[in-house]
Amino acid sequence: MKIIIAPDSFKGSISAKELCSAIGAGIRPVFPKAELIELPMADGGEGTMENLVHATNGTIINVSVTDPLGRSIPSAYGVLGDEKTAVIEMAQASGLPLLREQERNPLRASSFGTGELILHALDQGYRKFIIGLGGSATNDGGMGMLQALGVKFFMKTGQLIKNDVSDLLQLDEIDLSTIDQRLTEAEFVIASDVTNPLCGPNGASHIFGPQKGATPEMVKILDESLDQYGKVINERLNINIHSVPGAGAAGGMGAGLIAFLGAKVMSGIDTVMEAVQFESQLDDACLVITGEGKLDEQTLSGKVISGVCKVANYHNIPVIAICGSNELSSGQLARLGVVAAFSIVSGPCSVETAMSQAESFVVQCIEQIMSVYRLSFGKQQG
Amino acid sequence: MKIIIAPDSFKGSISAKELCSAIGAGIRPVFPKAELIELPMADGGEGTMENLVHATNGTIINVSVTDPLGRSIPSAYGVLGDEKTAVIEMAQASGLPLLREQERNPLRASSFGTGELILHALDQGYRKFIIGLGGSATNDGGMGMLQALGVKFFMKTGQLIKNDVSDLLQLDEIDLSTIDQRLTEAEFVIASDVTNPLCGPNGASHIFGPQKGATPEMVKILDESLDQYGKVINERLNINIHSVPGAGAAGGMGAGLIAFLGAKVMSGIDTVMEAVQFESQLDDACLVITGEGKLDEQTLSGKVISGVCKVANYHNIPVIAICGSNELSSGQLARLGVVAAFSIVSGPCSVETAMSQAESFVVQCIEQIMSVYRLSFGKQQG
Repeated sequence: MKIIIAPDSFKGSISAKELCSAIGAGIRPVFPKAELIELPMADGGEGTMENLVHATNGTIINVSVTDPLGRSIPSAYGVLGDEKTAVIEMAQASGLPLLREQERNPLRASSFGTGELILHALDQGYRKFIIGLGGSATNDGGMGMLQALGVKFFMKTGQLIKNDVSDLLQLDEIDLSTIDQRLTEAEFVIASDVTNPLCGPNGASHIFGPQKGATPEMVKILDESLDQYGKVINERLNINIHSVPGAGAAGGMGAGLIAFLGAKVMSGIDTVMEAVQFESQLDDACLVITGEGKLDEQTLSGKVISGVCKVANYHNIPVIAICGSNELSSGQLARLGVVAAFSIVSGPCSVETAMSQAESFVVQCIEQIMSVYRLSFGKQQG
Repeated sequence: MKIIIAPDSFKGSISAKELCSAIGAGIRPVFPKAELIELPMADGGEGTMENLVHATNGTIINVSVTDPLGRSIPSAYGVLGDEKTAVIEMAQASGLPLLREQERNPLRASSFGTGELILHALDQGYRKFIIGLGGSATNDGGMGMLQALGVKFFMKTGQLIKNDVSDLLQLDEIDLSTIDQRLTEAEFVIASDVTNPLCGPNGASHIFGPQKGATPEMVKILDESLDQYGKVINERLNINIHSVPGAGAAGGMGAGLIAFLGAKVMSGIDTVMEAVQFESQLDDACLVITGEGKLDEQTLSGKVISGVCKVANYHNIPVIAICGSNELSSGQLARLGVVAAFSIVSGPCSVETAMSQAESFVVQCIEQIMSVYRLSFGKQQG
């Protein structure tokens, strides 16, 4: 008996990896001999690296890098169980949570640290990269990352651009001669569901700039800077990056990765499912258990659970979902591809209680579900 | 496929009968052809009559009787599907909810109306009686009921006692010559879990008097009145009613029924289970669904769910419980005999929300449980 445990995190409460453990702890008293495959899911955002490492029995490599403001910080990236693929979460080196509120400044914040993570992985011999873009503090079009990898950006004055994003307004020349040559052998996949363009009203600066600390005036400068950045990319690299969906992800990091490193964009859940070989893991499985903090209309158009269901349903493997709160009807659950969904709470309670006691709630809830599941199974398996 | 639906009510929210319907509504979309046996459970208290009538396809007979203060009110009793057994809930004629707060007065409140219900049933030819004692407004030792049935009580002065309970302080003689002779053919079962004696610190007046409106002074008078009542019963009927557990139920109604009508006391749930032929209904059933508003320590020592589990477990039929709130661990549930227990709520919410939306919560919750239950069953049944 093989059960696939593939939940998303319950945001603000319990990580996907912790959820896998709790779900396993609920299954084991009922089916002590079951083979439990823990595949913590993610949408490419926070937790993706840790989950992929856990799901593939990979390793985490600790590295010291510079944070968005140039300070040395401990960081890390993951290597999948295939020992070939490095998983880099931009937030681990260039993330908003690394800055204090008053330090946020997308005119200065640099993605350099993310480039250092890539460099370190290149040094270790890795040539396959999955890059997660969630939670960045930067709006530099990936310039910092590219600088770390040897790319040089020059203004019309001939001056080398350092880390002033507004200097990109004067961007005139890009020097690729000193780029790390190992990158020619490397493959990059961006795990992202962001489809925003690099510039304009739906672009990186307007949509994501404010949450990184940009004032309306700064947004204008940032947008014009990335516009000039895009124009020069178009001229020098012959890529119309302005028209590429997703180039605006993570403050234009999408553009940097796509234009300079040939990165392909894949939806977060598809990247994750491919990395953990989700489909082949389903072989001989009798059940998939997934979950999400809140099952609601967004789940229907969302990525993680619907992605899990799509593949599991295709293979006729039933999916049970757990959640903090369920707002979907049985009909909606059926359309989603979920056989049954349960809230983990054991009765009326506050959201705070549900969040703080999520782990024990999950164990208890899963044990109940599995006990029902066993009722008829038990007759065959004793 | 046969499923037994045997929940208690969710107190303050939804009756056992309504719960049966909601549970059925949750099962049907998953198992459209299942045979559903609705056996709403009760502990002998409020709802017992209605539940027994529903469970046995019986009938309800509407009668006009006098309330505890002598006013004419519409009342009712039930006749079971066997067409032989009348089920009388004392609260329907002599209940506390029939009085306004300021009308509560156990020195005056009479159980006469309950006697009228019995009389009406005797007129209709019924000779088997189940009497539920919950929720009485009276502390008259069943004197009112007995007066309705023809018994006369006299004071030392020779004066006939009417409805002043304190007159029992002067009780000297009981005249049984005018008692309804049909009672000699009748059998009475009291459905009650109350074991309080008639008098004393654990007696009817001290324990239940205050909630019926008795002040400390009144409690003293009531207790002394029932003490004299018991002494005369002992002398005239040769029954030491003071030593009979349960004689103190319902303001001493227990004493009246036991001493004068030869009633036997059975626990509420045993009475209910016998009346609905619970054990034989279990034949060929694959599952029992029960439930209670709150699963907690009290449930373990409680009557309804543990009664249901005991019989179902004996016949190896699994029991699933639903509830508003579950405070029992998996170990405690196992000791209770429940395979799995689920709160009906779909996420964090207030008790008020859980109570007001209980019906739709139950339907959704049961549909989820049944969908899991079907997972392996489905393979056999398509």
